[in-house]
Amino acid sequence: MKTENIPYKIYLNEDEMPKAWYNLRADMKNKPAPLLNPATHKPMTAEELAPVFCDDLVAQELDDKTAYFPIPEEIFNFYKMFRPSPLVRAYCLEEKLKTPAKIYYKFEGNNTSGSHKLNSAIAQAYYAKKQGLKGVTTETGAGQWGTALSMACSYFGLDCKVYMVKVSYEQKPFRREVMRTYGANVTPSPSETTNIGKKILAEHPGTTGSLGCAISEAVEVATTTPGYRYVLGSVLNQVLLHQSIIGLETEAALKKYNIKPDIIIGCAGGGSNLGGLIAPFMRDKIKGLADYRIIAVEPASCPSLTRGTYAYDFCDTGMVCPLAKMYTLGSGYIPAPNHAGGLRYHGMSSTLSQLYDDKLMEAVSVPQTEVFAAAEQFARVEGILPAPESSHAIKVAIDEAIKCRETGEEKTIVFGLTGTGYFDMVAYEKFHDGKMDDYIPSDEELQKSFATLPKID
Amino acid sequence: MKTENIPYKIYLNEDEMPKAWYNLRADMKNKPAPLLNPATHKPMTAEELAPVFCDDLVAQELDDKTAYFPIPEEIFNFYKMFRPSPLVRAYCLEEKLKTPAKIYYKFEGNNTSGSHKLNSAIAQAYYAKKQGLKGVTTETGAGQWGTALSMACSYFGLDCKVYMVKVSYEQKPFRREVMRTYGANVTPSPSETTNIGKKILAEHPGTTGSLGCAISEAVEVATTTPGYRYVLGSVLNQVLLHQSIIGLETEAALKKYNIKPDIIIGCAGGGSNLGGLIAPFMRDKIKGLADYRIIAVEPASCPSLTRGTYAYDFCDTGMVCPLAKMYTLGSGYIPAPNHAGGLRYHGMSSTLSQLYDDKLMEAVSVPQTEVFAAAEQFARVEGILPAPESSHAIKVAIDEAIKCRETGEEKTIVFGLTGTGYFDMVAYEKFHDGKMDDYIPSDEELQKSFATLPKID
Repeated sequence: MKTENIPYKIYLNEDEMPKAWYNLRADMKNKPAPLLNPATHKPMTAEELAPVFCDDLVAQELDDKTAYFPIPEEIFNFYKMFRPSPLVRAYCLEEKLKTPAKIYYKFEGNNTSGSHKLNSAIAQAYYAKKQGLKGVTTETGAGQWGTALSMACSYFGLDCKVYMVKVSYEQKPFRREVMRTYGANVTPSPSETTNIGKKILAEHPGTTGSLGCAISEAVEVATTTPGYRYVLGSVLNQVLLHQSIIGLETEAALKKYNIKPDIIIGCAGGGSNLGGLIAPFMRDKIKGLADYRIIAVEPASCPSLTRGTYAYDFCDTGMVCPLAKMYTLGSGYIPAPNHAGGLRYHGMSSTLSQLYDDKLMEAVSVPQTEVFAAAEQFARVEGILPAPESSHAIKVAIDEAIKCRETGEEKTIVFGLTGTGYFDMVAYEKFHDGKMDDYIPSDEELQKSFATLPKID
Repeated sequence: MKTENIPYKIYLNEDEMPKAWYNLRADMKNKPAPLLNPATHKPMTAEELAPVFCDDLVAQELDDKTAYFPIPEEIFNFYKMFRPSPLVRAYCLEEKLKTPAKIYYKFEGNNTSGSHKLNSAIAQAYYAKKQGLKGVTTETGAGQWGTALSMACSYFGLDCKVYMVKVSYEQKPFRREVMRTYGANVTPSPSETTNIGKKILAEHPGTTGSLGCAISEAVEVATTTPGYRYVLGSVLNQVLLHQSIIGLETEAALKKYNIKPDIIIGCAGGGSNLGGLIAPFMRDKIKGLADYRIIAVEPASCPSLTRGTYAYDFCDTGMVCPLAKMYTLGSGYIPAPNHAGGLRYHGMSSTLSQLYDDKLMEAVSVPQTEVFAAAEQFARVEGILPAPESSHAIKVAIDEAIKCRETGEEKTIVFGLTGTGYFDMVAYEKFHDGKMDDYIPSDEELQKSFATLPKID
């Protein structure tokens, strides 16, 4: 066991917690491309977004000038129930790997939603409450976002309607019950409660649903029910803004012990965690104050950065939402069964897409059996059972640490451990039983999917 | 929101963590009665216990003189991965209850085993490793103990054989998979791997097992396999010793902010959590240095302290283990289905039984629907989804806080939140659906059970 003066877990004091979110777009030289109206192909205005999203969130969504947004006191008080999250020195993993590298992880799983999603959920619920709304609607697949939003709405006394992909609703009853514990109304999608749901059920009797369908139902309810708005847990600029709390706390904890990272690693689905984790580090990189390697890790089955194309695309499979310019596999791409449900998204946040296009960050894709092997290795020495999503970052952190062992370099690696895997044991079971496959899409499949991209002048 | 200078979560620094466990028996005026050999009814000797338990643990078990046992460095380093655990000020719960009381809870759920069980599991695994053993055996019902032991054995490279009550093995596959993730060998009990298992299967084909049967199988394997010993997660003195880390940290955190508790509340099954939480506070009470109300909370369906009798009894249903003097419902008592699996034990640790008999602590029993209502109320404001076991303490803490609202007293209440309920959503679902019953045994049923007690001269 190494004995240095750096504790296993670095906790900031409450008075060291960040008081404002950081908006990375303000410091980007090449700004992310704006959302476009799918009908006119013109940039979406605040007025056009207002029927869907809360007013304050629309303002945050469209603002690429303001660098810091003060965190309202009510949100800060809620944060104090589960934040600051620890920055953990992985002493035991380092020893196991016999690496000279120093490995740290920012652990976001110590809250009941089980992930970082709560950071944005509580903010979005707060702004809905502030606007005097009755409630919000959303969709959920794996269930982390739905759980986080249920908790946030319960805290502010807001109604919460969650459309849960029917196959998940049936296969993950425990996730559903956690949401019900927080008073949320959980409906399997597609449902008879919406026009689009009825239409889909009529056309596809017995369908088990999809994320795209659930989004369409949630948006329909939000825009047709007085006092409701729709909220989303990833991809959007506002979400990356709220998630910057992860990176700001990480930065403060590192500075507290005078630690300078060399490599920063995060898993990437829609980009909520990665965008939040890297925000202050990318700021310093853009400003030339520091030079970090920043690595996005995505599943080989859904490789939007590493094998996608940079283009305007629909954010949802139902093609009702605005168009975003992003690295995408095409909104018609149906990711093969991958147990990291949170990474099964066809595109990537516009901000991260622009940074990747500007070569300010790297991306790698990894097959899921290797991800689960890394997850198990990590769990056995560090004690935490990681979510499959988070384990993508673990896999690459281990790979980089092994490279250090080979070269003898004492690099400092920081990765984001976004959550816990308590509700993912079916996937772990498949892994243990040797029944887990690695699906990698063919070039032909991707080319076919790219053909579904909208034509933008 | 109240704003005082006490943070939401009090974390000790690593250098403030306790360096030794505290053995409350050393300071008790009336010592707990010794374990008796079931054949001779004489006190068990170290030699008699050595084939079952590790040598160092036998020494701890029998020692009622030594007040402090230094925590070995290897265990301390493991503790640092998930300890210190936070002492949380329940500001939001206080506000919701409109109580002048100040409520704190010591939260032990922030580790993958999901409970305080890991505190003793790592100690027991360490001593097994130190003795050069190959592995350990144990039984598990609800699965928290089995999970904790799997994690501990994985860390020290020990083999871990878990006999899991068959009905739990089948109904809780996720618990099983967590244990497999940590490399444990999990066998549904009764099984064909032991003589006692074969015998039971022959006599009761199709049985779904019981804790008593699983204990018998685990003990048989430990005592007939070279290099193995049996370990247990509650009831024993050694377990309460290791769990004193909970109380010692709580004491240190309270002192750090000059907080003086009035009431200390813990749930009680076999007594591992309660015995650990109250240890240093009971010490001061015994020495006349402070006067606390100390309250044990048990389920109305399994009320060993509140309705049991104080007598020597078997620790296991199979009647193969030593006799312990304790408040008991009789080892033949089969608790009605109660979702707090960790509290379904017919007896209570000898130490706690003696303290209760000496009127140094109180006990109350609560019906489970009220427990789940308190759990849900707590989850919605404090963000943590509590285990059913822990929620017994929540229920009584809320009751006491409401009394303070009525009297206007600003009492300080501390309770133990032993773990999380992620693997208990079936019980929450029953509660949500109004399908949960409150079973309370009749006096006749208990009298019948008391008749099974062994006759000791």
